[in-house]
Amino acid sequence: MTYSMVELIGKKRDGTSLTPDELAWIITQYTADALPDYQLSAFLMAVLFRGMSGVELAAWTEAMLHSGEVLDLSSVGKAKIDKHSTGGVGDKISIPLAPIVAACGVAVPMMSGRGLGHTGGTLDKLESIPGFSVDIDPEVFASQLEDIGMVMVGQTESLVPADRRIYSLRDATGTVPSVPLISSSIMSKKLAEDLDGLLLDIKVGSGAFMKTKADATELATTMIGIGASHDTPVTAILTNMDQPLGQAIGNANEIQESIAVLRGEGPDDVTELTIRFAIEMLMLAGESDPIMAQDKVRNALESGTAFETMVRLTEAQGGDPSYIEHPERLEIAPYEHVIQAPRDGWVSSCDAFAIGTAGVRLGAGRATKEDEVDPGVGFSIRAKIGDAVSKGDPLAIVAYRDRAKLENALATADDAWSISETPTARPNLVLETLR
Amino acid sequence: MTYSMVELIGKKRDGTSLTPDELAWIITQYTADALPDYQLSAFLMAVLFRGMSGVELAAWTEAMLHSGEVLDLSSVGKAKIDKHSTGGVGDKISIPLAPIVAACGVAVPMMSGRGLGHTGGTLDKLESIPGFSVDIDPEVFASQLEDIGMVMVGQTESLVPADRRIYSLRDATGTVPSVPLISSSIMSKKLAEDLDGLLLDIKVGSGAFMKTKADATELATTMIGIGASHDTPVTAILTNMDQPLGQAIGNANEIQESIAVLRGEGPDDVTELTIRFAIEMLMLAGESDPIMAQDKVRNALESGTAFETMVRLTEAQGGDPSYIEHPERLEIAPYEHVIQAPRDGWVSSCDAFAIGTAGVRLGAGRATKEDEVDPGVGFSIRAKIGDAVSKGDPLAIVAYRDRAKLENALATADDAWSISETPTARPNLVLETLR
Repeated sequence: MTYSMVELIGKKRDGTSLTPDELAWIITQYTADALPDYQLSAFLMAVLFRGMSGVELAAWTEAMLHSGEVLDLSSVGKAKIDKHSTGGVGDKISIPLAPIVAACGVAVPMMSGRGLGHTGGTLDKLESIPGFSVDIDPEVFASQLEDIGMVMVGQTESLVPADRRIYSLRDATGTVPSVPLISSSIMSKKLAEDLDGLLLDIKVGSGAFMKTKADATELATTMIGIGASHDTPVTAILTNMDQPLGQAIGNANEIQESIAVLRGEGPDDVTELTIRFAIEMLMLAGESDPIMAQDKVRNALESGTAFETMVRLTEAQGGDPSYIEHPERLEIAPYEHVIQAPRDGWVSSCDAFAIGTAGVRLGAGRATKEDEVDPGVGFSIRAKIGDAVSKGDPLAIVAYRDRAKLENALATADDAWSISETPTARPNLVLETLR
Repeated sequence: MTYSMVELIGKKRDGTSLTPDELAWIITQYTADALPDYQLSAFLMAVLFRGMSGVELAAWTEAMLHSGEVLDLSSVGKAKIDKHSTGGVGDKISIPLAPIVAACGVAVPMMSGRGLGHTGGTLDKLESIPGFSVDIDPEVFASQLEDIGMVMVGQTESLVPADRRIYSLRDATGTVPSVPLISSSIMSKKLAEDLDGLLLDIKVGSGAFMKTKADATELATTMIGIGASHDTPVTAILTNMDQPLGQAIGNANEIQESIAVLRGEGPDDVTELTIRFAIEMLMLAGESDPIMAQDKVRNALESGTAFETMVRLTEAQGGDPSYIEHPERLEIAPYEHVIQAPRDGWVSSCDAFAIGTAGVRLGAGRATKEDEVDPGVGFSIRAKIGDAVSKGDPLAIVAYRDRAKLENALATADDAWSISETPTARPNLVLETLR
């Protein structure tokens, strides 16, 4: 069947739903270079204003998903569950989470991204482990999943090529902030991993792409709907991102903090979310009793099997496991600067966006795609919302390499904290769970 | 000043007005091939949804207008007034109108278009006069205006090149039906003619691009606003286009009907509108008394000076003036088919869109840009809304050349008339005048 793209744009523009065949035709034509960018960008802008129905979104996502190869993990004799985060500051949860879940007998075929804007990326963090490679041979993907229970890799070129192309067009045409386009982009990539279930961590707040709970809920329910049309159960947890997660913001220091979590020595917030997410993933894998799931997770941590899984993963992906055993050996930038509390009081805000932006300026993230990440620089946050501080107390310790970059980072970071004269409550970490 | 196009798209998408400098930058960059089509098409779709403020529209139109050459008619010692119609079926008004106004001492630098969709085009009609050329030497433009008082030509390549490029992008990206984009396209071309005033004929109804009076009023007030920001007075008349104008729909036959109007023998509706428009154009040229204007118009018709102006124009533009003297000599297609009334009653509709579409199928217009127009084919309408008919009476006589094209045309035209059992009122020709 052949369609007129200008008529399909007109339908969407006028608020009429497109048929699944029409939507699939657009993706197929665009991927085959048979549709000009200027038509697709006008269509995407019309989608931004008009939205997509559940039926349209399912068809659009399905067509994206089938624009390239789809993994076949049927040889893996375990439930395959992944987790995706919409991105935050100090969000290293994937790194301790995957080995815990793998140690509990679930396969975690985790494909992650790099830092985007002010947020960090799991791949950048993993690469601060000397030798660790996030590209693995497709041949060993399934066998590593079977043996170790997890892989931690980047997206391969052959998976969902339509998304890569559409994403760069959206990036250049102001069509990024659209719930159906964001949802279909994430879900097409995740569903191409041949999953039995997916846990979504939807960040909400100043440091997140979704600033309000209402926006985050819309995104969550949209993605749950796409999962349902594809017979893949999705659980979405809305979590607070007004302030950074944990203490470490950077790369090598976030690996150190992740290993601390696996050893039972991590910061409370990171540990709490990691355990909460692990329980949800076990339940997506078929464990019906949350108490049983919790016991398994605690056992994986206390027995050291989760830690051991991280060691084996590092070894399997070319990394030097001695850095997992002795994370203090990871290279941290040589100079320290202390951000001090300007007065006595209680921390009433610790702005994740400001600190994330300062991290990028320091070199921990990329301002442009071509920039190199410096794994050793970053922040160690010492005062978070609700903490009492005295004048001169450290709010954060900055590890830096270059004085000019530090100054540039401080121009943003110095304003990240507000100190109030009255106590402030600590924010709830988990806002809502949607299934 | 340099801007980021993706940021400008984002501003428009989010409903923020752009500055005049930002809008001018977009037009300049696009005309200089420094802005990709896919960014402009996304921007145009955002404009379609968000609209433009009066300030934005004035700046956008002004930038389009200055994207190429602008006529300098300061050497012409007369007021320069043009008329533009948004397009209808059987709308030949420009052809008798311009010589009347020119005979009254006003300069009419008329740049017209070709048929578009189901509507006819003045240039196509003029070219059915043997030898008539719608391309004149730019050197003689001003002197012919001075001597004869009018030119009737196509748009030159050097005038408003931004509009030509943006229009073809809009045509391919579903961004045609936007009031600010339609208005700026028309007004940039008209203002580039160095006018002292402009009369707009905004067609409303089934045969027009604007289907409702509300849409037509919005378009009219938008264009009047653009004229005001450019210190050019604009009068807009909303006229009915539920049924065709006059009897003739085609090309050579519309020239015959136009000459009949100049001889005082035209159909009532065409004659009425032509006189009405001529009066408005004289008033735009400075005549403050409508009765005086009407006297001048009647005098130009009755004395034969308007007719004589049409003869001189034809001669000046390479046409054979004997066809103006003897329009019955214009070649009309050899075969006739009569569409008959199926029963007794009163005509309650005579659908302009259906008849216009049938005219294109017959060969009087173009289905694609490459098609040739057949000047001799067309319709002669014999029954219009409000007329009483008996079964078997002719509703229209079709002049055709090719049997297959006739059949194809009749498939649409046969359904154009509705006959009711009760009398129907004739529709008002003029709906509203806006200044």
